[in-house]
Amino acid sequence: MKLATFRTAEGTRIGLADGEELRDVSAILVDVLGGLPDMERLIRHADTLLPVLRQESGEIVDASKVEWLPPVPRPGKICGIAMNNSASNERKISAPDHPAFFLKPASCMVGHGQAIRVRPYYGSVHPEPELAVVIGTAMRDVDAVSALEHVFGYTIFNDVTGNGMRAEDLFRYRAVYRGSDGELEYREQHLSYAGRYKGSDTFGALGPWLVTRDEVPDPDNLAVECTVAGEVIARDSTRYYNYKVCELLSFISQFHTLEPGDIVSCGTAFKPEPGRKSIHHANFQEVPGPVSISIEQLGTLSNPVVIEQRQIGNWRLASSA
Amino acid sequence: MKLATFRTAEGTRIGLADGEELRDVSAILVDVLGGLPDMERLIRHADTLLPVLRQESGEIVDASKVEWLPPVPRPGKICGIAMNNSASNERKISAPDHPAFFLKPASCMVGHGQAIRVRPYYGSVHPEPELAVVIGTAMRDVDAVSALEHVFGYTIFNDVTGNGMRAEDLFRYRAVYRGSDGELEYREQHLSYAGRYKGSDTFGALGPWLVTRDEVPDPDNLAVECTVAGEVIARDSTRYYNYKVCELLSFISQFHTLEPGDIVSCGTAFKPEPGRKSIHHANFQEVPGPVSISIEQLGTLSNPVVIEQRQIGNWRLASSA
Repeated sequence: MKLATFRTAEGTRIGLADGEELRDVSAILVDVLGGLPDMERLIRHADTLLPVLRQESGEIVDASKVEWLPPVPRPGKICGIAMNNSASNERKISAPDHPAFFLKPASCMVGHGQAIRVRPYYGSVHPEPELAVVIGTAMRDVDAVSALEHVFGYTIFNDVTGNGMRAEDLFRYRAVYRGSDGELEYREQHLSYAGRYKGSDTFGALGPWLVTRDEVPDPDNLAVECTVAGEVIARDSTRYYNYKVCELLSFISQFHTLEPGDIVSCGTAFKPEPGRKSIHHANFQEVPGPVSISIEQLGTLSNPVVIEQRQIGNWRLASSA
Repeated sequence: MKLATFRTAEGTRIGLADGEELRDVSAILVDVLGGLPDMERLIRHADTLLPVLRQESGEIVDASKVEWLPPVPRPGKICGIAMNNSASNERKISAPDHPAFFLKPASCMVGHGQAIRVRPYYGSVHPEPELAVVIGTAMRDVDAVSALEHVFGYTIFNDVTGNGMRAEDLFRYRAVYRGSDGELEYREQHLSYAGRYKGSDTFGALGPWLVTRDEVPDPDNLAVECTVAGEVIARDSTRYYNYKVCELLSFISQFHTLEPGDIVSCGTAFKPEPGRKSIHHANFQEVPGPVSISIEQLGTLSNPVVIEQRQIGNWRLASSA
């Protein structure tokens, strides 16, 4: 089942995508839930609602005339896995021997077809094609073996990244730790902060729809392709992730409670073929969109790119790499 | 006006704190909003609701018998400012010349009196006393001069930090950038990811209540004190922040839209007096709580600390510094 969130003159709606068709099932959801259609509530009541939605027909709408929103418009959190592609391993001089992740805010999200907006003062910005998991039921301390039982579905995430800002938001400093003798000691540490470079407005495109778990038997073997202005910049597969989806969810759940509607984006599938362009060629400041990501069984997420000619106000920032 | 979110047998409630008293105004909010009491909705309808709440009486409840929740239980985002204390400047070997920030998830939050839970495999974990801003109206591209007009109120945030995990989640690697000649080039870069060390469950205590902006004329000059097990580990003031509150909000708004209910935590007020203990002595693995943070005009946020004797499941992690 492919579930989409979209907007029409009547407001925010939920629909089932079926080939070229989009069936608006909002009225059914309002009847059952007694309130506005909302993907997070649908997920929380999936056991009751999905069988109903499978049977009902709903009104057919013209998919080309609606505004697509992220299938989960306001997830409680978005966890992005860092450097999970085995193609990046040879570039790691030192790295942890477990997954590492950062957070993106719900406010950075756009849906299929909505513009990714980039400003000159952001410096270079590139796309990152990723498999995203939508959590179905709360999970804490869940073993990898049973982690996928907590998944509601899968979708595509463009983890737009400002590597110009990334290069600016680095600290090298003397951190304070307490030594084994109880005395404080200084340790030189490099830290970086992802608030701007991962979380700026429109830096997270999600969609076009989410596909329920039953239709994706093996999330660890899905072909991924990313194009910018029609040119392929990544052709990869989720089988080249260092950690499987179930391992990522299990790991995070030993620190965070993952909640219904939360998004875990599994890391960049960026592997370029020899001689081809890579995601690092696709600086949105220079290359016009649209950017499209296709993942096997999940569809194609496509977004135009708009350069906003705006200067930064109160701050002077070094021009970025 | 001091607004609190709390829980009783009747469910989640909103109250006005007034000295030792807590007045439950949930029924009034339900009447006006036509739905469940929720701080984010109250903030969005503040112009209508605050004058009503000032006049109504509401039921008095015994503050010692309720469970305090974070005043905004599920903010859309929590931005945490990094290294904003001038006392840390001398330890910076290199750093950006503008604010830098990270995100914490709403799922990490606890309220006043709720336990901060730490597990042995987290490594060292310490408190960070901070002034937190609650956004009132959406802001994007707002100058520092008018930034405070978008503030709904202020509260206290304990930005609990796992510096053991911080030391583990570091990458040194050869990042790919595109050079001025258009060719790809490698640059050695150190990156770190804050997902675990800043966002684990219970790593964000907020409260006890929020104080509306009208009662805090100068957020840039508030005394801050933090104690652990009764011993002072920080005595500082928000006047020692590198960036004023209005500058932080203005800066973030040039990248992110800040939305009603969002939290911006302004950085650690950790300055110890000479010869005193510091926050880095307060490793929760070794020092029992409670941890208390008092900020002038905002009250005292106090939380017990519980060590959960749990081993990590599928992952072996190096024991932390």
